[in-house]
Amino acid sequence: MKIKILTLFPDMFNGFLSESIIKRAIDNNVVDVEIIDYRIYSNDKHNHVDDTPCGGGAGMVIRCDVIDRAIKANCGDSSYICLMTPQGERYNEEITKELAKKDEIVLICGHYEGFDERVRGYVDRELSIGDYVLTGGEIPAMAISDSVIRLLDNAIKEESYKDDSYFNGLLEYPQYTRPVEYNGKTVPEVLLNGNHKLINEYRLKESLRKTYLRRPDLLENRVLTKEEERLLNEIKKEEM
Amino acid sequence: MKIKILTLFPDMFNGFLSESIIKRAIDNNVVDVEIIDYRIYSNDKHNHVDDTPCGGGAGMVIRCDVIDRAIKANCGDSSYICLMTPQGERYNEEITKELAKKDEIVLICGHYEGFDERVRGYVDRELSIGDYVLTGGEIPAMAISDSVIRLLDNAIKEESYKDDSYFNGLLEYPQYTRPVEYNGKTVPEVLLNGNHKLINEYRLKESLRKTYLRRPDLLENRVLTKEEERLLNEIKKEEM
Repeated sequence: MKIKILTLFPDMFNGFLSESIIKRAIDNNVVDVEIIDYRIYSNDKHNHVDDTPCGGGAGMVIRCDVIDRAIKANCGDSSYICLMTPQGERYNEEITKELAKKDEIVLICGHYEGFDERVRGYVDRELSIGDYVLTGGEIPAMAISDSVIRLLDNAIKEESYKDDSYFNGLLEYPQYTRPVEYNGKTVPEVLLNGNHKLINEYRLKESLRKTYLRRPDLLENRVLTKEEERLLNEIKKEEM
Repeated sequence: MKIKILTLFPDMFNGFLSESIIKRAIDNNVVDVEIIDYRIYSNDKHNHVDDTPCGGGAGMVIRCDVIDRAIKANCGDSSYICLMTPQGERYNEEITKELAKKDEIVLICGHYEGFDERVRGYVDRELSIGDYVLTGGEIPAMAISDSVIRLLDNAIKEESYKDDSYFNGLLEYPQYTRPVEYNGKTVPEVLLNGNHKLINEYRLKESLRKTYLRRPDLLENRVLTKEEERLLNEIKKEEM
């Protein structure tokens, strides 16, 4: 897969690209990440990419002609172009899975007051990583790249993500490791006795409990298995 | 304000700290950001901070004793400690405003399969930046730091954020800048005629329209002014 990130702050990605799982995925040719500074598409002797808002107001707006030229120079038929914007569709794991199937995704990062509205006509999708305001689209582009790359074949071991939060629509069950006892708090007995049937049931139940208590919205449209239904009824009684 | 970020990948923050608005806020003493590698609290000759999950399963779990020592060494009474975790409360602009009032926030980043469950007892809050899985807590810590820093006095001009998305609970109105005409698409007439009463009404209406069409959930609990109610009724008729 190829990821192209169009930004005015290419150096913001230095740490992201040179560390941990992302670096390994790049080194192993699982993904190619290209950072493109779109200031070069300014066509303006001062290299300006933005201008004041029509109608007045604070801040600067990124020009549509600059983005149009940047897209024409860097994108082809197989490019799936996403605009990083707080007005976009709320990014979630379903969209991650969709993006992970594309050959090439292009993430366009704004800054300042955002993009000229006409830019929206040039992209396939507008994405927001959450209901909070950031100074630019660079952190969202990192979040989206990171979430997509980890789903690619050979980026991480499949066992490592198949139980992760949201992967199956529930919050993850509590994890414990050594020391078994620390400051008076111990690992639950069931995790220490090696009975895998009981361990699996404990984990499913606690995963359901955490979801029920913290994110009941995730259970609303879920089709529960018979076992999940039974466990959830137990939880509801226990938590009354 | 002081922000301390506890991480196993300190270099991931290099780009984040050395660019744009965050760099300027640090240079101007608006905020002090300290990146702390908590591997030094391992107390283990191989510097391991994690171990296999009790009860089996893939991946590695970060030990509670390591985090406990890291917190004791770096946090005081005025520290507000937040754990970056997909099981946490969903981060939003209301929480940003809360965090922006603290003297010191501490953001703890996990990696691998997450934290030993007992770690949750050591923190003030668990936060998730959205319903997608990332390889670690570093990008969430950047997102939270960035969103908080931009609200601090003198980080950016107040006029620059008071109209931003979510700041007043609505999506931002469409912004336009020059060229007035580009590829057959023009800036709306109202923004060019200099009538500020009409411009303000246009912006409020389009802000309401975008929110109504894309994020109706944001309107559900909103107390509308008389003008907002009138405009929203017009929009509902127009969009039928």
